[in-house]
Amino acid sequence: MIVQAVTWIGGVDGYLELVDQRRLPGEFVKLECRDAEQLHHAIRALAVRGAPAIGVAAAYGVVLGLQRLGEDDTVAEARNELTDTCEYLAGSRPTAVNLFWALDRVKCKVETTSDRVTLGELREAALSEANAIFAEDVDMCRRIGENGQRFIEDGVGVLTHCNAGALAAAGQGTALSVLFEAHRQGKKFHVYADETRPLLQGARLTAWELQQAGIGVTVICDNMAGWLMKQGKVGMVITGADRIAANGDAANKIGTYSLSVLAKKHGIPFYIAAPSSTFDLSIADGSEIPIELRAGEEVVRPCGAELAIAPDGVDVWNPAFDVTDARDITAIITERGVIEGPNAERVAEHLQAGA
Amino acid sequence: MIVQAVTWIGGVDGYLELVDQRRLPGEFVKLECRDAEQLHHAIRALAVRGAPAIGVAAAYGVVLGLQRLGEDDTVAEARNELTDTCEYLAGSRPTAVNLFWALDRVKCKVETTSDRVTLGELREAALSEANAIFAEDVDMCRRIGENGQRFIEDGVGVLTHCNAGALAAAGQGTALSVLFEAHRQGKKFHVYADETRPLLQGARLTAWELQQAGIGVTVICDNMAGWLMKQGKVGMVITGADRIAANGDAANKIGTYSLSVLAKKHGIPFYIAAPSSTFDLSIADGSEIPIELRAGEEVVRPCGAELAIAPDGVDVWNPAFDVTDARDITAIITERGVIEGPNAERVAEHLQAGA
Repeated sequence: MIVQAVTWIGGVDGYLELVDQRRLPGEFVKLECRDAEQLHHAIRALAVRGAPAIGVAAAYGVVLGLQRLGEDDTVAEARNELTDTCEYLAGSRPTAVNLFWALDRVKCKVETTSDRVTLGELREAALSEANAIFAEDVDMCRRIGENGQRFIEDGVGVLTHCNAGALAAAGQGTALSVLFEAHRQGKKFHVYADETRPLLQGARLTAWELQQAGIGVTVICDNMAGWLMKQGKVGMVITGADRIAANGDAANKIGTYSLSVLAKKHGIPFYIAAPSSTFDLSIADGSEIPIELRAGEEVVRPCGAELAIAPDGVDVWNPAFDVTDARDITAIITERGVIEGPNAERVAEHLQAGA
Repeated sequence: MIVQAVTWIGGVDGYLELVDQRRLPGEFVKLECRDAEQLHHAIRALAVRGAPAIGVAAAYGVVLGLQRLGEDDTVAEARNELTDTCEYLAGSRPTAVNLFWALDRVKCKVETTSDRVTLGELREAALSEANAIFAEDVDMCRRIGENGQRFIEDGVGVLTHCNAGALAAAGQGTALSVLFEAHRQGKKFHVYADETRPLLQGARLTAWELQQAGIGVTVICDNMAGWLMKQGKVGMVITGADRIAANGDAANKIGTYSLSVLAKKHGIPFYIAAPSSTFDLSIADGSEIPIELRAGEEVVRPCGAELAIAPDGVDVWNPAFDVTDARDITAIITERGVIEGPNAERVAEHLQAGA
């Protein structure tokens, strides 16, 4: 079974059901969001995380906002409610690009609906657009899996980092989608999941998703990856990406860069799986990608532990991402196909061909 | 200030004072051991850790054991007590070679003392041998520091892994001794301490020791080391070692191997600091060094956390050590000097010259 992180239950009067990712892997709990406030809180508190998953959830949040309207409300009042809800939800994670994009899409769809429609038709338009965003994500994830599964050879050991799975998307994820697809085709392989300090998404979420899907998985500490490669246990590395420059340099969760260097040293292919929307052609190469520095507290108190693991007042360096050189990436897998040996020319070709 | 992990207070009727490493870095608490049972428990419970520190503590444990004797006891009874105490303490950490070595040394010293001596003289002989082991360790640590400090250039960023400091020894440690010595000479440099999963000795102990000594230190997650190197922040890497083969291949805490590969990729020198007793000439190269696999629980419940960070029943791979290739080690620093570009010939020369 592949988990579905975000599910709309019912029609325009329905509600949103989220897998509460704060409770995983200890408990599998569904969180019901029946109004925009509940969803706002869920996004802010990281009950739902992963750019595509947040975007889809926010799109349904607009539908929840419009439920506030009564039978006596006019279409003009509905448009005000729409604007208010979108602004309100946009404030839940102020830097999440997918969130703004999804809200804008639903807003535009509703706004461009003719003025003569009824309130009910407006609400249907919002739900229909949210469903479309959901369906596109599911399709995109599936295509990435289909395009990438050919790299999974029978009996291979696959190393992955962080969580690029179904929990981060509406569909079955990106890097993990490749694994789910290969598994569906009956291929046998074993996955090693880096625990992924500081937030441990690999141990908490990736290991859980693979376990649920019936795929064999072993958790390791991040510092064990090189030694695992040296033992001949790793046949390929696959991760997601957060932003990819025009030349193929790829930003992903901190630790990915080290994995790419270690993979190259051991002659192991290194794959990135990400939607084509991850490419940012305004950025020539990885040196221009800004790297978010996060609070040291994340490192010092794992999972919000009461006792700190480092002495009081100690300095901590906590970059959230790093950048892998395009020349250390064997191929980038998108929903459009595969870019082998990525460079500026091949990235441009790939994106034009599929446009 | 450089911490002293193991301190004997008083004469033959004295007691052993340990820094309780289980409580660091949250609390700096001294643990008094006034009989062999208390020490046995302290070693078993990891209140004292690090091979040299355990060895020295156990040597003093023999002195504690002999305190049990009354004025009416004979020398023959003292010899029985000696044997019992040594066997008992040897059971506290069954695989710790330094522990057996130190106990044997004190036992031999007492046993070879003439039969005609008094009970008091026997006890003095035990204390004197324990003091000798302590003093030799202090001297060895200091010499390693003196031999290695020349590699610390003013303004350099130094990356270290795990804890090879004063907490692991009677003296000021091995890798950290080099830093303490450079600091004493007024050199300015900054240290990056890998947190060192799973047991976090880097964040808990190394960061604390350096802070106490007034040396600037920044804690990072292990998976950030490569990216830190890429930023040009690391001028050298220095770690300890647990066992070194005849050709210079060095076993050390898991994660050291990856650091050596990353250092080489970035053109950064990589040093090992360890006493010459760390060499095991019965082992030709690193492939013969057995690697201890430890329980997955250490990974899944950081610092004994109540909540697991990975799903129930998930497989975990938890090797305690890995082996760094001699060709990736710039130099090995011992109390006898420095082996630059270590290989079998140079290791043999080094050990013969100092013998």
